[in-house]
Amino acid sequence: MVTKVNNEFLDIFELAKNIFPLNRSLTGNGVRDTLELIKDLIPEVNVYEVASGTKAFDWTIPQEWNIESAYLEGPDGRKICDYKQNNLHLVGYSEPVSKLMTLSELQPHLHSLPDQPNAIPYVTSYYGNTWGFCITEIERSKMVDGVYKVHIKGSKVKGSLTYADVVLKGKSTKEVLFSTYICHPSMANNETSGICVLTFLAKWVAGLSNRFYTYRFVFIPETIGSIYYLSRHLKHLKKNVVAGFNVTCIGDERCFSFLPSRNGNTVSDRVSMHVLKKMDPNYKTYKWSNRGSDERQYCAPGVDLPIASIMRSKYGEYPEYHTSLDTLGAVVTRNGLLGGLNALKESVMCLESNYFPLIKTIGEPQLSKRKLYPKTSIKSNQELARIYLDLTTWSDGTKSLLDIAENMGVYMLEILPYLMILEENKLVTLNRMPVK
Amino acid sequence: MVTKVNNEFLDIFELAKNIFPLNRSLTGNGVRDTLELIKDLIPEVNVYEVASGTKAFDWTIPQEWNIESAYLEGPDGRKICDYKQNNLHLVGYSEPVSKLMTLSELQPHLHSLPDQPNAIPYVTSYYGNTWGFCITEIERSKMVDGVYKVHIKGSKVKGSLTYADVVLKGKSTKEVLFSTYICHPSMANNETSGICVLTFLAKWVAGLSNRFYTYRFVFIPETIGSIYYLSRHLKHLKKNVVAGFNVTCIGDERCFSFLPSRNGNTVSDRVSMHVLKKMDPNYKTYKWSNRGSDERQYCAPGVDLPIASIMRSKYGEYPEYHTSLDTLGAVVTRNGLLGGLNALKESVMCLESNYFPLIKTIGEPQLSKRKLYPKTSIKSNQELARIYLDLTTWSDGTKSLLDIAENMGVYMLEILPYLMILEENKLVTLNRMPVK
Amino acid sequence: MVTKVNNEFLDIFELAKNIFPLNRSLTGNGVRDTLELIKDLIPEVNVYEVASGTKAFDWTIPQEWNIESAYLEGPDGRKICDYKQNNLHLVGYSEPVSKLMTLSELQPHLHSLPDQPNAIPYVTSYYGNTWGFCITEIERSKMVDGVYKVHIKGSKVKGSLTYADVVLKGKSTKEVLFSTYICHPSMANNETSGICVLTFLAKWVAGLSNRFYTYRFVFIPETIGSIYYLSRHLKHLKKNVVAGFNVTCIGDERCFSFLPSRNGNTVSDRVSMHVLKKMDPNYKTYKWSNRGSDERQYCAPGVDLPIASIMRSKYGEYPEYHTSLDTLGAVVTRNGLLGGLNALKESVMCLESNYFPLIKTIGEPQLSKRKLYPKTSIKSNQELARIYLDLTTWSDGTKSLLDIAENMGVYMLEILPYLMILEENKLVTLNRMPVK
Repeated sequence: MVTKVNNEFLDIFELAKNIFPLNRSLTGNGVRDTLELIKDLIPEVNVYEVASGTKAFDWTIPQEWNIESAYLEGPDGRKICDYKQNNLHLVGYSEPVSKLMTLSELQPHLHSLPDQPNAIPYVTSYYGNTWGFCITEIERSKMVDGVYKVHIKGSKVKGSLTYADVVLKGKSTKEVLFSTYICHPSMANNETSGICVLTFLAKWVAGLSNRFYTYRFVFIPETIGSIYYLSRHLKHLKKNVVAGFNVTCIGDERCFSFLPSRNGNTVSDRVSMHVLKKMDPNYKTYKWSNRGSDERQYCAPGVDLPIASIMRSKYGEYPEYHTSLDTLGAVVTRNGLLGGLNALKESVMCLESNYFPLIKTIGEPQLSKRKLYPKTSIKSNQELARIYLDLTTWSDGTKSLLDIAENMGVYMLEILPYLMILEENKLVTLNRMPVK
Repeated sequence: MVTKVNNEFLDIFELAKNIFPLNRSLTGNGVRDTLELIKDLIPEVNVYEVASGTKAFDWTIPQEWNIESAYLEGPDGRKICDYKQNNLHLVGYSEPVSKLMTLSELQPHLHSLPDQPNAIPYVTSYYGNTWGFCITEIERSKMVDGVYKVHIKGSKVKGSLTYADVVLKGKSTKEVLFSTYICHPSMANNETSGICVLTFLAKWVAGLSNRFYTYRFVFIPETIGSIYYLSRHLKHLKKNVVAGFNVTCIGDERCFSFLPSRNGNTVSDRVSMHVLKKMDPNYKTYKWSNRGSDERQYCAPGVDLPIASIMRSKYGEYPEYHTSLDTLGAVVTRNGLLGGLNALKESVMCLESNYFPLIKTIGEPQLSKRKLYPKTSIKSNQELARIYLDLTTWSDGTKSLLDIAENMGVYMLEILPYLMILEENKLVTLNRMPVK
Repeated sequence: MVTKVNNEFLDIFELAKNIFPLNRSLTGNGVRDTLELIKDLIPEVNVYEVASGTKAFDWTIPQEWNIESAYLEGPDGRKICDYKQNNLHLVGYSEPVSKLMTLSELQPHLHSLPDQPNAIPYVTSYYGNTWGFCITEIERSKMVDGVYKVHIKGSKVKGSLTYADVVLKGKSTKEVLFSTYICHPSMANNETSGICVLTFLAKWVAGLSNRFYTYRFVFIPETIGSIYYLSRHLKHLKKNVVAGFNVTCIGDERCFSFLPSRNGNTVSDRVSMHVLKKMDPNYKTYKWSNRGSDERQYCAPGVDLPIASIMRSKYGEYPEYHTSLDTLGAVVTRNGLLGGLNALKESVMCLESNYFPLIKTIGEPQLSKRKLYPKTSIKSNQELARIYLDLTTWSDGTKSLLDIAENMGVYMLEILPYLMILEENKLVTLNRMPVK
């Protein structure tokens, strides 16, 4: 219990340090350990195990993969590519191996990056039934001819896939969905950042006493995880999810990025752009053709959930991507994580306040009798009254506060207080849906 | 009767000179005198009185305000801010006062414009129960310390609000609405011009023997007047008004301006832009967010009449606005008024001829047998035939003549004669509504 | 029969040479001879005769016009404007004449082009009951005063109008319509090219063993021909034609051009632009206001067939247009004709493969188990898998392959093979219509 109390004050960057080194993959103990750390922070989190072989749409839950140790031992007896030192050294889902091979036999199993000679690449072979090691180009060039001992000790056997979710109920059964992935080991922006930001976002949402929407946070392995999750919850999610975000690559300070849903014009897309324009007018916009994470499943034909992506430096678009250079410190920072977290908090606040206001009067309301208009009209004292009148003129019940803010050219959370004053004066009704 | 005959030939600028000095406000004898001058020119005008205290939507008809005399008398016995010299000297709806005050006690009741030191500002306090004087910055700086006599003699008591309208029936019960306001005293562009232009427009429409639409001209105080008018006629107007214009600031020669309806794409908006593009390709376009006159009420949510504004220099956008510098001669000219009047006449003609033509033949008509095609076809003698063919190819019954003209890149009144020839040749039907 | 076998190998430019000199007009033996040459190549062609005086919508089939000989004989006994040398010398549909006239009496009957002094203009007077001769400006300037013998021997009498069509049935009763015109004599681009390209296109379509659509090829005189054809087939064509092209001016090498249907957004328009962008990114785009051929009838109000025009140098837009300078060699070339033919073949292939694919899986399909995904995932080996995934993400049943290709920024025939592999793997259904 003491641990939990301490965790309440755990810093987001400390959490990142804790989960960074774990060997996350589609399955296995690295995933379980990661989820345990999250559950320490959010006790309401549910952790699930799905047996290997279970069907999920076009896919099948794979065997569970765990590694005890893995390395190469050279002719000089020196260990290289030691999984203990960096789990990126081992190709993800490598088969257990124990044999001797010459360097030339070994070469097809080695992966390095000539253009980034000091980087270990991130390579997987989930469905390939093969094995391999990843190594920096510099180290590879030092490998001498001779016989190497190949050692991969572990198991790839029937077991289970582990994932988690947490649902925080609001006044409405309509849901906002957040999803991140827990299968990428020992890389910071992709993907330690998403797990950390989503954990802290869930903690913050849990503290929003008056939340309107129900919030669902999903921690799954990429692709197979979201496909499994959809296979179990499709009907419920299609009925209830009104907005959502795929959370990935959200921890560096270099930029903000936006990738739309397949639809491209959902409220999630529009809120993302509205928030990012406020936070960073030079944020980068990608297209659906640049997609590459679980939005591929959440927005697939027949699924069509309104899921957008708010990112910092997008996967595939920064030099350290999918290499050992994607580290805490060099790429991901505390400020980077907090900026990403803040963008999602603002998005939540925008969704929560995205009313469809409907004015109750015909013609403008008489602001003066409610002390909302200056006593004496001169040329230049009407800015405040103007905000009230702009709000009321657009409050025809068909436009959301987001629509209205964009018509007015302002950020919606800046005009929200004025809308609340109009509501206190019984001048507008704050509907959640447009009038017909 | 002799007066009326003379008035038939009254020049628009002479009318402006007559009504400029009257002390118009929300209510009072200045309004009545103004409407009397209009009624001299258009006997069909109806003048109405609405009792103070009458409810109109969120508003209440205010007390009636009349002033006999008002001025300040300085320590040296000199009168300043004399309402008789310029009724802008008195804050609109000032309470009667008779007392002695020191200059420093008086200061909060004085209004001047440091940036325009020779201008008397226009200030009102309709619902403030206060009083004040407006003065040039130059005169104010000359006021010496000492005791001033404050004199405002008049009444703000239960009475009535005065307004007028005239309805000129056409073949159709569908209406075109024009509205201007009669509450602004002693300023030329805002608002002597609108009253004069609307009066002369109504006289011209009355002479259109074959008009299709019914025309409604409304002369009201701003805001409370349009709100009252809507409260009495809302159902009728929503059912019948197909187009309309709020008429204000339409008397100078500096530019033409357009402010759309809240909807932004009504026939009034489209006709305005079509006419203005013809009259002045550099006309200024404003947005609904720049609104500021009775379109605020006519286009309010739940009212939604198709009311656009064709103006010359828009309120708030010219330096003399709402000051004593907005005068006949310096700002408003005969040519300025006639140009504004002309823009509205062209708009009426466009509306009257905005048919949805429907061709009667399948395939192109044979123009040659109707002598509408050159006898011998050579490369370059087919311009006229081309106009006929362009008209017929777009005459599918779903496009108005305005749509067709914009497709053809021409002004609709220029191709109207050709459409009439096609109709005389029984090649098109001139519908008033699109075919389904 | 030998002739037909030889014709199978006839070159498109040889066909052009054969039909170029024939005196085509609205009616007459030049038309019949032209159609006979086409029928030699495509035995399925049907040739029809319609009696003069027959009604067709607003029009009447004119008298048949045939010429035996026509010329002017000068005071010096020299023949000029001899129809035998160039049938453009005679104004189309000239009345028979035999008389003596002075040069000044003759002048109103002469047509030349001062700006193109060595060109004989193309002039017609179908419905004018007159006659005339066309001459180069150079020759005209050499004509001396004196008495000329005017000789036009021929007939303009009750007869018939000749046209042809051929329908090549496909699996579907839905049709693709191609139309060209057979009334322009002795000009190459306008209009020998359209007849040749359409003939060779029909031969090629006849050889497409598995065609989905039914193809209709129409060879008619311009305007009166298409109007007559519509008058006989309107209901059938409106029900069945899903795409089509008017074929004219399609034989030079200077550029490609596109003129849309009146609707502007039919599948014919979109396929035309898609194909032309691939073949010539700098192709010229015209508007419906630039129309001038039988699309005027096919797209007329109430007809509204989806007919676009793919051209090379458009009628009216090249200097040799409607003159004797529009010749084979100088304007139209073998490559020019083959390029135009190719654009229409590509259009046919695009239409034939314009499926509305619908993915069968929910979420992405598992490509790896079908050997469509690389065994080991590294940063840069996924281009091919990406094409499959892009195809499946857009295969929601509402988008055509053309829509998908434009979303992907590629040419649709380039991705067609990948779509076929997905279909072989039973991952998509290839619908012909969008799902609701």
